[in-house]
This record gives sequence, structure tokens and C-alpha cells, in this order.
Amino acid sequence: MWKQVIVIRQDLRMSKGKTAAQVAHASLEAYKKSSLEDQIEWEAWGSKKVVLKIKTLHEIITLQKAAAKARVPNALIKDAGHTEVEPGTVTALGIGPCSEDEIDHITGHLQML
Amino acid sequence: MWKQVIVIRQDLRMSKGKTAAQVAHASLEAYKKSSLEDQIEWEAWGSKKVVLKIKTLHEIITLQKAAAKARVPNALIKDAGHTEVEPGTVTALGIGPCSEDEIDHITGHLQML
Repeated sequence: MWKQVIVIRQDLRMSKGKTAAQVAHASLEAYKKSSLEDQIEWEAWGSKKVVLKIKTLHEIITLQKAAAKARVPNALIKDAGHTEVEPGTVTALGIGPCSEDEIDHITGHLQML
Repeated sequence: MWKQVIVIRQDLRMSKGKTAAQVAHASLEAYKKSSLEDQIEWEAWGSKKVVLKIKTLHEIITLQKAAAKARVPNALIKDAGHTEVEPGTVTALGIGPCSEDEIDHITGHLQML
């Protein structure tokens, strides 16, 4: 199975609307970095998206490095900071689409939002 | 200014994680239906995304028809229904990217999530 995972920071205490917008940014930017083959495979699996939570900036940066090391497409989102958070704040990380095995190796320890 | 609007149903009382996933589905699917010109213009404006709320299925269908009539790219999302809602439930609508004027003509009366 192919899937995409979006990791969102909980420590920023963003609203439901702000959270949703950050998740959408991360999903789209990671998608744009993925290969056409992965995009097609993912769509065949229903474009599965899973939203996970993380507690700190340090943890999200560590995850991004793990994804990059594994050569899994990923996109770290820095918010423009018009509302709720300071400009340049890292809010979310999109990982994939790629195979579930590859993603779970990186994010398998995290909980659903 | 170019933007994308994602409208989410409030009457389904979805969780924060479920809401975020539906918004990401709507954002990506509407993006895929948009022209390359609109995609490039939108990225130049920072890929602005706005999440709005709506109360009923009837209202979201009415909005989708208005977007279609105005020839604005749009994507109505029906959830597979693995969690929280019944299979086939309409959860969200992505509109654009396109010019702010065109979108506001359709969604200007709605409130932020």
C-alpha cells in the first residue's frame, strides 16, 4: 500500500482551521516533490493520507532528516506567520507518497492526531 | 491575488485529524484540476489556502454548482468512510487556485474555520 503521512506540531496549539491549512500545505508540497510513479501508485490506493502528531520542533526536524536520508520525498512547512504563529515557524512535515513500509519505518512510533 | 479555498462541513463533527485529512484531500484534488497557469500564479502568491466552514450537505452542493458554473476548478470530496463518517459522505470542497475576486464571488459569505 502507498500512503502519505503529514506530521503536525502539537506544541504550537494551532486552531482547527490553522492546523488543516498547514496539513494541506505539507500534503501538496510533498506530493509535488514525489515521482510520477509514486503519484500514480498512490492514487491507485485511494490517495491515503494519515495525519500524525508530534510535540516539538526538534522531533519534526529529526523526522525530516530521517526521511531525507531514506530518500523519501518530504516537505517541511514554514508558516508565513500572518496568524497564530511567528513568521518562519516550522508547523508541519509532509512525507510521501511512498510505500507504507518505507513510511512506517520513519513515522511508525507516532500517534494519530 | 491567487488563492485556494477549502470548505469543510461542520455538521459532521469530525475530529481535528479527520478534518485536516479531508481538507488536504480537497486541496490536492482541486489543485490537480487547475491549469498550469493558475498553479504557477498561485505559487507566486505563496500558495495561499483558506479554510472555511459550512453547515449542511445542501449548502456544499450549492457551492460546488456555483464553482462549476463559474468554470472555477473544484473538487468535491467523498470520504471512503473507514472512520468517523459513513462511506460516500461528502465532507469537503476544494475551490481553486484562481483569482481572489472569482473565489470571493462564490465563497465570500462564508466564515473561517
